[in-house]
Amino acid sequence: IQQNRELLLADVAVISDSHMMTPHQPAILYGLRGLSYNEVEVTGPTRDLHSGSFGGAVHNPIHALASMVACLHDENGHITIPGFYDRVRPLLDEERNELVKNPFDRDQWLQQAGASNDWGEAEYTIIERTVARPTLDVNGIWGGYIEPGKKTVLPAKAFAKISMRLVPDQDPDEISQLFKKHLESIVPPTVQVKVRKMSSSFPAIVRRDSKMMQAAVHAYEEIIGAKPIFIREGGSIPVVAILQKELNIESLLLGFGLPDDNTHSPNEKFHLPNFFRGIDTIIRFLEI
Amino acid sequence: IQQNRELLLADVAVISDSHMMTPHQPAILYGLRGLSYNEVEVTGPTRDLHSGSFGGAVHNPIHALASMVACLHDENGHITIPGFYDRVRPLLDEERNELVKNPFDRDQWLQQAGASNDWGEAEYTIIERTVARPTLDVNGIWGGYIEPGKKTVLPAKAFAKISMRLVPDQDPDEISQLFKKHLESIVPPTVQVKVRKMSSSFPAIVRRDSKMMQAAVHAYEEIIGAKPIFIREGGSIPVVAILQKELNIESLLLGFGLPDDNTHSPNEKFHLPNFFRGIDTIIRFLEI
Repeated sequence: IQQNRELLLADVAVISDSHMMTPHQPAILYGLRGLSYNEVEVTGPTRDLHSGSFGGAVHNPIHALASMVACLHDENGHITIPGFYDRVRPLLDEERNELVKNPFDRDQWLQQAGASNDWGEAEYTIIERTVARPTLDVNGIWGGYIEPGKKTVLPAKAFAKISMRLVPDQDPDEISQLFKKHLESIVPPTVQVKVRKMSSSFPAIVRRDSKMMQAAVHAYEEIIGAKPIFIREGGSIPVVAILQKELNIESLLLGFGLPDDNTHSPNEKFHLPNFFRGIDTIIRFLEI
Repeated sequence: IQQNRELLLADVAVISDSHMMTPHQPAILYGLRGLSYNEVEVTGPTRDLHSGSFGGAVHNPIHALASMVACLHDENGHITIPGFYDRVRPLLDEERNELVKNPFDRDQWLQQAGASNDWGEAEYTIIERTVARPTLDVNGIWGGYIEPGKKTVLPAKAFAKISMRLVPDQDPDEISQLFKKHLESIVPPTVQVKVRKMSSSFPAIVRRDSKMMQAAVHAYEEIIGAKPIFIREGGSIPVVAILQKELNIESLLLGFGLPDDNTHSPNEKFHLPNFFRGIDTIIRFLEI
């Protein structure tokens, strides 16, 4: 994109990589989260030790890593990294009111998640937490003996993969730096920590007050028969932020999938009527 | 042993599975730690989830496990399981004075451990922490994506292998129960925990005031030329406690190895002169 700016001149980018709420309730995606993905390595002794000989007098790097992970969230589900929330654009009342319109059934959501209860920032709704708030998850952790059976080892190292989902206007590279600095500041003096950034992408919010967006709204209304609702998603489509930054081009995220399409999963499908109605909607959008 | 008591009638059991301090400084081992080894399974959602879609609203079992591991020790290295220390026989001054006689060089110990600093209960010496105090170590931890690269998963489960070294008069089965109860009492309501006992063995302390022990001390003195010092070890020789409990037979742990024998490691050796002096010492012990 940086090397072919003149080939890419355009008024708008139309991306169909999202979904409607139902076959009769269209939706326009306007917010995507960014990502900072990091690997953490905690080193204790220079080699694996016998826990019977050294346990209790040499700090176990698994204990140190667990303590560090445990204090990355406070008891209210907030992330404790200093400066982490500084650039988070506050959720406007108008936006919260719009998000509330998303059809949402808590019991159905719990069943879909396979969870007995929800968790996290109580002052935000479940939808807000998953699409409009930044989050931190340990995606993997390992250290010591992890095969069947037992081994009384006090391991030399422990590892974790830790990613953060970001919202506008957080900068993923700045967040990776803050994350690294924070771990270096809380690591106990008895072990060492190394943090390696693995990847990062910017979050994006698309303007909803543009003429182009209004045209898309009207096109949906005419073809599908209902006004689209505006939604945000927890995932990332990195090109949206890149087009905004590099070419100053806004994207319109006009989805025609359905929530039960099993996207990227076994038995993925696409509802055929939406295929044709999608073509009609885009034609109508271009006409307007 | 339980099925052949009459075959095993004896005044004493002589076990040579320990070491001298130097070729000229014999030692008699009189304390061994026991063990409670457990596997912990924390379950969050019923299946792995996408952290971009559910992170921030579903409790990540790795976070829950890390929090639970983090609070198993307080800031002074003490174990926080209620009742854990109740049956610990206090270290007598006389015994502490004896343990201080163990030749010990902190810098050499740190080098041997490959550690930059020691850790643990500050009110006990490093030797006391590793041989005479009960300890808890996470021997292994795993959950989520642990291959090279990245995957933004919020896993269904996280696991840890956690063992405790025990001292007289702790009962390993009781300790396993206390451990299980404690984890069940601190597990957050958003996840489930299962604790499975994998193995256990009793700690043992051998009487040092018996006639047999005096005979062993004299035999060492006559053959090696120095009075043996009394030592305890962090590891376990489970049969010592079994012989005490089942047959009321005391063991004499008369060691002839050396600290640099690389026991159970590559290039294991045995100092040949100790082989012959060991034979002579045992003969002299039987004579006395």
